[in-house]
Amino acid sequence: MRQATGRLTVDTPGQGLHEITPEVARWVDAQHMAEGLLTMFCTHTSASLLIQENAAPAARADLERYFTRIAPEDPQAYAHDDEGPDDMPAHLRAALTQTHLAIPLVGGRLALGTWQGLYLFEHRRRPHRRTIALHLIGE
Amino acid sequence: MRQATGRLTVDTPGQGLHEITPEVARWVDAQHMAEGLLTMFCTHTSASLLIQENAAPAARADLERYFTRIAPEDPQAYAHDDEGPDDMPAHLRAALTQTHLAIPLVGGRLALGTWQGLYLFEHRRRPHRRTIALHLIGE
Amino acid sequence: MRQATGRLTVDTPGQGLHEITPEVARWVDAQHMAEGLLTMFCTHTSASLLIQENAAPAARADLERYFTRIAPEDPQAYAHDDEGPDDMPAHLRAALTQTHLAIPLVGGRLALGTWQGLYLFEHRRRPHRRTIALHLIGE
Repeated sequence: MRQATGRLTVDTPGQGLHEITPEVARWVDAQHMAEGLLTMFCTHTSASLLIQENAAPAARADLERYFTRIAPEDPQAYAHDDEGPDDMPAHLRAALTQTHLAIPLVGGRLALGTWQGLYLFEHRRRPHRRTIALHLIGE
Repeated sequence: MRQATGRLTVDTPGQGLHEITPEVARWVDAQHMAEGLLTMFCTHTSASLLIQENAAPAARADLERYFTRIAPEDPQAYAHDDEGPDDMPAHLRAALTQTHLAIPLVGGRLALGTWQGLYLFEHRRRPHRRTIALHLIGE
Repeated sequence: MRQATGRLTVDTPGQGLHEITPEVARWVDAQHMAEGLLTMFCTHTSASLLIQENAAPAARADLERYFTRIAPEDPQAYAHDDEGPDDMPAHLRAALTQTHLAIPLVGGRLALGTWQGLYLFEHRRRPHRRTIALHLIGE
């Protein structure tokens, strides 16, 4: 049994779901393990991780709109707005989704379902450089 | 240290929380480990995982109603409805809950609290066959 | 490769986010590992875990208010109220956040971002003694 750690840097153009499945799969492949457990950890509180439908762009747009609706920008609603009106909603949307994800590695491949993609969910309006810590254990 | 992988197949009768604690515990027992970490990974984007109260059926019914209310079926609200009006709400409810869960194994048993049960949360109206990938590492 | 398990007991004064980063980091330090994966598992269904902004108290207060708003106390709304009006909302708020968290250990430190803190999110009004199961694997 052995382990590997790494970092994935993602430049986001602004709010929305940004697919990172190929980058993550590439890093996993480079570790040459057949069986194990991958953990992805988002080192931010205004961006998060999500596994979602990778086939229908309309589903992603609906998902982005939904989180905009349930955790809206609203200057009246929040005390914390140090970085602007999209600051607090970003923390809320991150709290409602995932800071980390773990996926088994089976037969040399991540055990993702046919329609599952890995996404970094950017919650801030402006472009950001985001870092995801990676950990793989197995053999 | 060693690891084991497996798959749990669950036939759901339609929307709702379906307890899978016994099936998962049985698989874990069969690996004969005393200490470790179990990871369960749901390979779908319209079903998810949740740990919840296992004693009160009313709590589960309230929980199901709550997710129906905050991510409702609404033909006006979503662009994505390839598979019908319960399609997009299913993705939303999955996004608000968990694609994966991890539970420590201590003294040969999952470290679940007294009132915690493991549930597969089916978000589609029709029956589905769902697959959960399992990974256990320990000794 | 080796593993360690432990338990963290947290006495909460009532509803809200209670930071546990120092206690968790102390336990991790005591295991003397340089690289690995930490898993924290909350053994309750009316308290949960969350990684959030650790610098701005206003952000935490906004976050607490937000969950009070989207999963409110409302005697009309729920069938389950065995333990009072804050019982069912507690389960809902737990379902919307995390029962477990996993964080890579890199260079002897948890890979938390600069502004990330680990929180136990107490959802019941009265003080409670909460238990978090800990698992660390690495070397």
